[in-house]
Amino acid sequence: MIKVGLLGCGTVGGGVVQLLRANAAYIEARVGAPIEIAKVLVRDPNKERVAELDRDRLTTDAKDVLEDASIDVIVEVMGGVNPARELLGTAIAAGKQIVTANKMLLARHGGDLLERARKRGVDLAFEGAVGGGIPVIRVVRDSLASDKIESIVGIINGTSNYVLTRMRQDGLSFQAAVKEAQDKGYAEADPTLDIGGGDAAHKLVVLAMLAFGARLDGATVPTEGIDSVEPVDHASAERFGFVVKQLAVAKLKGEGPSALLELRVHPALVAKDAPLANISGVLNAVAIEGRALGPCLLSGRGAGDMPTAVSVVADLVDVAIAKKSGVSGNMTRAIRLGERKLASMADVETRYYVRFSVYDRPGVLAKITGALGERGVSIEQLVQQGRGTADVPVDVVMLTHEAREAAMKAALAAIGASEYVAREPRMIRVF
Amino acid sequence: MIKVGLLGCGTVGGGVVQLLRANAAYIEARVGAPIEIAKVLVRDPNKERVAELDRDRLTTDAKDVLEDASIDVIVEVMGGVNPARELLGTAIAAGKQIVTANKMLLARHGGDLLERARKRGVDLAFEGAVGGGIPVIRVVRDSLASDKIESIVGIINGTSNYVLTRMRQDGLSFQAAVKEAQDKGYAEADPTLDIGGGDAAHKLVVLAMLAFGARLDGATVPTEGIDSVEPVDHASAERFGFVVKQLAVAKLKGEGPSALLELRVHPALVAKDAPLANISGVLNAVAIEGRALGPCLLSGRGAGDMPTAVSVVADLVDVAIAKKSGVSGNMTRAIRLGERKLASMADVETRYYVRFSVYDRPGVLAKITGALGERGVSIEQLVQQGRGTADVPVDVVMLTHEAREAAMKAALAAIGASEYVAREPRMIRVF
Repeated sequence: MIKVGLLGCGTVGGGVVQLLRANAAYIEARVGAPIEIAKVLVRDPNKERVAELDRDRLTTDAKDVLEDASIDVIVEVMGGVNPARELLGTAIAAGKQIVTANKMLLARHGGDLLERARKRGVDLAFEGAVGGGIPVIRVVRDSLASDKIESIVGIINGTSNYVLTRMRQDGLSFQAAVKEAQDKGYAEADPTLDIGGGDAAHKLVVLAMLAFGARLDGATVPTEGIDSVEPVDHASAERFGFVVKQLAVAKLKGEGPSALLELRVHPALVAKDAPLANISGVLNAVAIEGRALGPCLLSGRGAGDMPTAVSVVADLVDVAIAKKSGVSGNMTRAIRLGERKLASMADVETRYYVRFSVYDRPGVLAKITGALGERGVSIEQLVQQGRGTADVPVDVVMLTHEAREAAMKAALAAIGASEYVAREPRMIRVF
Repeated sequence: MIKVGLLGCGTVGGGVVQLLRANAAYIEARVGAPIEIAKVLVRDPNKERVAELDRDRLTTDAKDVLEDASIDVIVEVMGGVNPARELLGTAIAAGKQIVTANKMLLARHGGDLLERARKRGVDLAFEGAVGGGIPVIRVVRDSLASDKIESIVGIINGTSNYVLTRMRQDGLSFQAAVKEAQDKGYAEADPTLDIGGGDAAHKLVVLAMLAFGARLDGATVPTEGIDSVEPVDHASAERFGFVVKQLAVAKLKGEGPSALLELRVHPALVAKDAPLANISGVLNAVAIEGRALGPCLLSGRGAGDMPTAVSVVADLVDVAIAKKSGVSGNMTRAIRLGERKLASMADVETRYYVRFSVYDRPGVLAKITGALGERGVSIEQLVQQGRGTADVPVDVVMLTHEAREAAMKAALAAIGASEYVAREPRMIRVF
């Protein structure tokens, strides 16, 4: 019998209880013992639960769970940094195995928790933290045994992907798409963390920590949200053969220990026939590039409680097998996180999509292209959308060749400050 | 120290040796012990190897490997049914752990080998058998702990996908595309097993055995190759918003133990914006639909020696961890294969694309649609490509609504036998 203490029993926790029950026979055969939810930490034991649990297993006191010596595994699905951080620290110190789906906690303190788990010889599994039901964490962990990961590019926020998809495919405004996502339960009442890119940045830090063995606790990821993407950008992207997606990018620049780690989250133009371009709605996807493996794409439902519960249960089974066999700690033993410097956003080199709202006066295009050219940014394609006048601005959109971000930003600042543009230029990176 | 006996040392085996060497430090930390290739069974010890190996570890006598009591794990990368079957049987009986990438062997005798491994308490890992470097086997195995798999649809033959991609994107003829695939090393000198669908059928059997717990040794999978797909089919599919892909399909029809297992390999029309439609060239992809997980897509390099070697090494590390900890057999313990009846192809229900080459005589379309309608096949779209005459045939292509395969076949036979069609009607299922 493997005894589990569950911290939190909202919708993910309820899903875990349901799945454990529905697949009990297979799980028992796989683990060699049944898995039992022995104690559950809840805020209000009178609240109705997704899955029915014996009332006497519910408690509002964390000590009842953490100090119960018979409990083997702590499954944390409460979310948030506090008190989850302290509770998991206590559980690790007590030698309990850990399964968590808490991306925010891991992004801030994952390196510290992994280090503690390694030293204490316990497992710490966190598949549920990234990509819902997509088994991306285990693919990354397993890849490391036989390969070097070179880059990870993901669509890892279902809300943002849903909003962008509805804007592009059905012409909804940003506000209308967000409202719809909220009505359907895909977005929180306060969607800032999703729309602004913060949630994707948390997941990216967790992925990068594991893939590149980097201590990244609390790392600041350059992040742009999708709120600045306008319908005209979707239309212009389409015209150039792209779609706009919110991407999270992690890659190593250079070789060896001095290689810099580039982390960024922002909207990007993705070529229409690229696999990532066709990940629509609330689906998530992660593209992993391994030196030996080549490109590998994983996609599936990233949002939602049930897919996350699937990942938590898969982790729990792994951890339980090890515990049952008396060999816990394999999962953390090989993880050694080292310092890794982050690349500066100014040094990113990529192609750009830029949109200027200009007054249609003689010589304006020459001035714009000149300002770009002076800084080494050359243009691949340029389209003026209709005709403006000397007083009514018109949109000019272009795709550039590869350029350094610093040069691009300098050119845009110069152009933006000139009298022939009606508003701040808009820039979206091309993936 | 985990000692490995390698059976076969062609390009995959050489890749395994290279990867073990390149990632030795991480692997040793992960396993808790180094992994050493102790003996290698080869046909000709004088032949140059991809990876240099001490000459005294090479042998041409299988007994030197299998009867060496110090060897913990047998890695079989020789391919083919014989003598691999007998060698692995002997190795299992001797209590050695097994890693194999041999899809043909597993399709014919996988159930038997798994059963033997389970009874003997040894692990039997076979990630390398399906999908090259894509970790599809472990995703399926892990999913089973927390979910029920409902269907698997894959593009699992890189050669076929390459040929279809080149025909569609660049207008190559079938023969030219196959020739090019051979020149690039993507197709064998005799490409029958790839082009004809036999290789995909082997992999499908391996996937379905695991996903549905079904004893399928030597199962006959209804299989159609891609050799009958003509350029006009690609063009017509495009017109309807589809691309032609070679798919392998496994799904349960019905519920519980009496549910039938539908297995099939054939070309299919896939909607252009579906993720599978954008898996191009030699890439492979597997779409798994789980009851709780929802849809999950994995894609990556399916063909090629290095991706397969990545999977073999990932398996080897798993098996070595268990061996080192003295807990081998977890991988096979929960697998119980039961009998599962296969669905008949006649009962498949799907939409169809059909192409008729007809003489442009009055009333011909009425006859065709009548012959379909009589058998309950209704038409969704119909296009006559240009104009023929009473003596020069013209192509008429249509998409039907969902229909039973038996009805569709009967209608096509009746139409094909009539005097107004110039040649056998062509049918491709729509996915």
